[in-house]
Amino acid sequence: MQFASDNAGPAHPAILEAIARANDGHQRAYGSESAMSRVRDRIRDIFEAPQAEVHLVATGTAANALILGCMARPWDAVFCSEHAHVEHDEGNAPEFYTGGAKLTLVPAPDGRMTPAALERALLPEGARSFHNAQLGPLSITQVTETGAVHDLAEIAALSEIMHARGQKVHMDGARFANAIAALGCSPAEMTWKAGIDALSFGGTKNGCLGVEAAVFFDPDLARDFEIRRKRGGHLFSKHRFLSAQMQAYLDDDLWLDLARRANEACARLVAGLRAHGEAEILYPAGANLVFVTLPRATLRRLSDGGADFYVMDGDPMTGDPAERLTARLVCDWSLGAEQVDRFLALLG
Amino acid sequence: MQFASDNAGPAHPAILEAIARANDGHQRAYGSESAMSRVRDRIRDIFEAPQAEVHLVATGTAANALILGCMARPWDAVFCSEHAHVEHDEGNAPEFYTGGAKLTLVPAPDGRMTPAALERALLPEGARSFHNAQLGPLSITQVTETGAVHDLAEIAALSEIMHARGQKVHMDGARFANAIAALGCSPAEMTWKAGIDALSFGGTKNGCLGVEAAVFFDPDLARDFEIRRKRGGHLFSKHRFLSAQMQAYLDDDLWLDLARRANEACARLVAGLRAHGEAEILYPAGANLVFVTLPRATLRRLSDGGADFYVMDGDPMTGDPAERLTARLVCDWSLGAEQVDRFLALLG
Amino acid sequence: MQFASDNAGPAHPAILEAIARANDGHQRAYGSESAMSRVRDRIRDIFEAPQAEVHLVATGTAANALILGCMARPWDAVFCSEHAHVEHDEGNAPEFYTGGAKLTLVPAPDGRMTPAALERALLPEGARSFHNAQLGPLSITQVTETGAVHDLAEIAALSEIMHARGQKVHMDGARFANAIAALGCSPAEMTWKAGIDALSFGGTKNGCLGVEAAVFFDPDLARDFEIRRKRGGHLFSKHRFLSAQMQAYLDDDLWLDLARRANEACARLVAGLRAHGEAEILYPAGANLVFVTLPRATLRRLSDGGADFYVMDGDPMTGDPAERLTARLVCDWSLGAEQVDRFLALLG
Amino acid sequence: MQFASDNAGPAHPAILEAIARANDGHQRAYGSESAMSRVRDRIRDIFEAPQAEVHLVATGTAANALILGCMARPWDAVFCSEHAHVEHDEGNAPEFYTGGAKLTLVPAPDGRMTPAALERALLPEGARSFHNAQLGPLSITQVTETGAVHDLAEIAALSEIMHARGQKVHMDGARFANAIAALGCSPAEMTWKAGIDALSFGGTKNGCLGVEAAVFFDPDLARDFEIRRKRGGHLFSKHRFLSAQMQAYLDDDLWLDLARRANEACARLVAGLRAHGEAEILYPAGANLVFVTLPRATLRRLSDGGADFYVMDGDPMTGDPAERLTARLVCDWSLGAEQVDRFLALLG
Repeated sequence: MQFASDNAGPAHPAILEAIARANDGHQRAYGSESAMSRVRDRIRDIFEAPQAEVHLVATGTAANALILGCMARPWDAVFCSEHAHVEHDEGNAPEFYTGGAKLTLVPAPDGRMTPAALERALLPEGARSFHNAQLGPLSITQVTETGAVHDLAEIAALSEIMHARGQKVHMDGARFANAIAALGCSPAEMTWKAGIDALSFGGTKNGCLGVEAAVFFDPDLARDFEIRRKRGGHLFSKHRFLSAQMQAYLDDDLWLDLARRANEACARLVAGLRAHGEAEILYPAGANLVFVTLPRATLRRLSDGGADFYVMDGDPMTGDPAERLTARLVCDWSLGAEQVDRFLALLG
Repeated sequence: MQFASDNAGPAHPAILEAIARANDGHQRAYGSESAMSRVRDRIRDIFEAPQAEVHLVATGTAANALILGCMARPWDAVFCSEHAHVEHDEGNAPEFYTGGAKLTLVPAPDGRMTPAALERALLPEGARSFHNAQLGPLSITQVTETGAVHDLAEIAALSEIMHARGQKVHMDGARFANAIAALGCSPAEMTWKAGIDALSFGGTKNGCLGVEAAVFFDPDLARDFEIRRKRGGHLFSKHRFLSAQMQAYLDDDLWLDLARRANEACARLVAGLRAHGEAEILYPAGANLVFVTLPRATLRRLSDGGADFYVMDGDPMTGDPAERLTARLVCDWSLGAEQVDRFLALLG
Repeated sequence: MQFASDNAGPAHPAILEAIARANDGHQRAYGSESAMSRVRDRIRDIFEAPQAEVHLVATGTAANALILGCMARPWDAVFCSEHAHVEHDEGNAPEFYTGGAKLTLVPAPDGRMTPAALERALLPEGARSFHNAQLGPLSITQVTETGAVHDLAEIAALSEIMHARGQKVHMDGARFANAIAALGCSPAEMTWKAGIDALSFGGTKNGCLGVEAAVFFDPDLARDFEIRRKRGGHLFSKHRFLSAQMQAYLDDDLWLDLARRANEACARLVAGLRAHGEAEILYPAGANLVFVTLPRATLRRLSDGGADFYVMDGDPMTGDPAERLTARLVCDWSLGAEQVDRFLALLG
Repeated sequence: MQFASDNAGPAHPAILEAIARANDGHQRAYGSESAMSRVRDRIRDIFEAPQAEVHLVATGTAANALILGCMARPWDAVFCSEHAHVEHDEGNAPEFYTGGAKLTLVPAPDGRMTPAALERALLPEGARSFHNAQLGPLSITQVTETGAVHDLAEIAALSEIMHARGQKVHMDGARFANAIAALGCSPAEMTWKAGIDALSFGGTKNGCLGVEAAVFFDPDLARDFEIRRKRGGHLFSKHRFLSAQMQAYLDDDLWLDLARRANEACARLVAGLRAHGEAEILYPAGANLVFVTLPRATLRRLSDGGADFYVMDGDPMTGDPAERLTARLVCDWSLGAEQVDRFLALLG
């Protein structure tokens, strides 16, 4: 019963098969292989964005940090949710790749930033001089780190605030597929139609070995991306093994299929938790992860029974059994109903 | 007839099979999977270095730049050959990861730095004050970018100069296996026994998809490596797909076997070139690549006949047919004697 | 009636005379002039710290950012008050000089950070892995940006928390003299005896032209300071003009005398404001600046009458006269009782 | 007999008097004081450049590094002479302020870069890909570090090469006044009329306490200068003390008068050296400094007799008296004919 992380799970077999097929003799290196052209075309098609610039890297942190580097100058403030992955889980990579920009946290109690909170964080027009961090871009995480999903109107409202001030908007879409599966909208609707200028389009957490696409709906922003990628050491010589993954991920909507499986498992899990007297769900769990508060004794029972998950605020194995701790439960594509049901059975 | 680059060739099937085998359910992420322990032990064993720190990344530029970041402070000079990959082919990644250290070029006419040239570049003791770049580490490329191979005494002499001044020595071993195959020495002899403090141990150019090991013989240097790797966006969540590659690469000395194949093809090629009246070989070709000067017309004939290679100083397809240009010919593990012979036949 | 800033005021004549006296023929450059030795000795004496390392720069931002660069690594979190000058008023200089460290804000409602708030911001021991910003130093502002003054026990409690975790503590003392004048303690008591490892000791806001001392009570921290200062372009060739200022500033306790004058003017101002029905004082005004909320009409009257000050949250000259805005009033050494009284008279 | 450096000499009294005059009550801070407007206008006038952007800093390294930061991106190559101050004497400040650009050395045997050498260093059009440092700006030092002075045609030829490739040209004019005095041309002729886009206009070495102007003939380049200056900690709050220096320096052509004095002293010195049988002058000494090779014994005699100067390649006080070493002799504005004559008398 694996609920620790969607990056601890296996790759989907179709991804591995595509890598094996790509291993065909000598090919042009560094992204000029023909498969990359097909990936680019396919992403432009899926996003209804024929002008989009598309590049691949192997990790989500690289995608986020490189895109933010294209958007923010070293003296800028980059706005993000107080829960954002770019703030808490990327080891100062955004600061590194922007040359020292200042991540400025916007309160987001349930994980979703509100337009009003963003407005306050930006300060009034004219309030910034050369003494201060300069106004810079916004990074929205979708699915948020709490598991909550921004709806399209929220994304559009946040983007509009930034665009009105001449700033760009990034979406950290490490779980982009799960958000699309949750909202049932089109990729275009959740991105450029809602004002997103560049997207980290995740593959790794959703069945790939390690591949993420940087998708620039505003192609001007991508001007230096390839140079920055090389400078960061993120240009693969045998790039075909990245494009092969992405191609298989997009073929036959595998990406959406895998995300739907993960979301369905999570919905089943949430329903079971809701039915349980002890469980308190912390945030609106809209996609494939849920935070739940349970007594230490219960968490211990789940753990002893073979469930694997992270506890955010303490060690369930020691201390007062009645005390309540919060666990994060993440469902990946490979987790079936059977594992969820076993977990819920242990929960009692 | 593929002589363009050893990173344009395919991965060895054993590497792909290892990746497929690694795709077995949920595993711990970020390098804490059990395969990484085995890789670490195996590298320590191969290098007779039980204390070595070992970490994996996916690209050679990442390995080099992250190791140099551990060795050099932002205000240091980093010494390297005038031909070095870190100077010419890494898009300022060493500057990025060191926070602005200054690559200082040591003359190396045939690719190999001499101790005397290094001494001159270091300046006399006491010649540096806070006005200048501070004394920093040395990076030796082995196999050099010209195809020449440093012998063990040269490496030891260079290292000794640096150690006498309290500085560290890095080896860029993107083609480390080819150098070992060329010299017939042990990995320990070419590294820590000759004064190397940290090694970029290449896999990608020699039959892997994309994996390089950072091997620290001086474990103190590795203290911040994991943090730097994360900050650079180079920590793989599904790290098992890096460790699987490296494990297969080391099993049954596959790495040496592949390097020997490449070196043998190159030796056959060099012998053929030497026997040809028009060809002038530029540097001592000790491993799997050779630079050769030929008339434009000859290069054109080779290209028309299906040979793929880089010309360093002009376009063979246009201009005076008698004029001589220099081509770089690289042999990878997958290039057999038959391809070499076809090339030599075309050469005439 | 100048209340805009203590850096808009004049230098004290004694400082200018010292500069003129220093202009005596050729002297050794870059801080090796004899006056610098005297400054170093004098500061060690004043701080009862014979081992302290002392260096001069010309701006407060340079002092703060260079010291933080000595304390924090690029992947660290630097903790500071939510009001801190290093966060809000230094144009990302701390991020620049640390190579990308993350300023992490500690709530400090009245300007003073509490130990409990600091503990929360640090996270529990073991909560940080390589995914996160690493634990780094603390920067305390004294006098705080709100005008409140930390007492010695508060400083000691904050320092102790950091030292218990092996981290260092910086004091931004742009208004250090005003704090000493306010508390009536010794410089040693407010710094190393309370756990401060390095101090930005301000001169510019308190009667100098432009000079600040970086004082390292932990001399190990200063190891790279001179190199960092040069790399930042902050090493003066004609350094004698910095040391001359600092020497005159310290002679006959001029620094304390000037700070007392400023604090006394402010106390007179605060007393007058407190006696006024409309004025609401926001923070405990312990030194030479005070934030006061007044009706727009009143602020307009003060401004029309010749008072110069900053309004933090709007333009007093437009809008509803009854609406209340907050002004910052800063008293410098040159502001006498007469100016304060004229201001209070205008207030009515 | 002070020949060590033009920054070891005194400030001119008129500069000090201007500082004293500027100390007049409260004034607007951070460069918005009225004196700065006058300085800006005066520089635009002197350079016949009404659109020029002008900003002040206190050190030459700050001026150079900040301007290069405006011109070069972190992944660029910055071209400069192999003797350049930005390469050898600024402690990696250019790397720091550009975010890691690579200083690429152009051979310049007598200190002056030739157009042919620059062309070779730039590489042919199309030779750079994302693997390499990108094409970036050129920095010309005038007066060069060897004391040679570029003539106007050389500067124009170098600039033209860069402009033809869309790149910008910086002039490090730490000794700009000496070059103007040497060539007898107008400031406009030596800068924008010869293709210079931005100039570090030095004051410190020529009679000021510490002030340099960054003059942008291409005002677009200055867009971020003020933000970068603040981020570097180089914005003076009491900026009036910088503008006062620069104003006095420009008034009545004091800057040119002081440079002429220094150049004349140097010409007298060079004439005396040329007349001496032992002395070998290394470079064309066109301004206020000269490199001369003399026997160790002679250097010892000069030093014993009270002459102060730097020896570049050894210690005159020890070793074989017959061996020849190279001394650098720098004349500042305050050095009169009498000191030169005393030096020459000692030389014998």
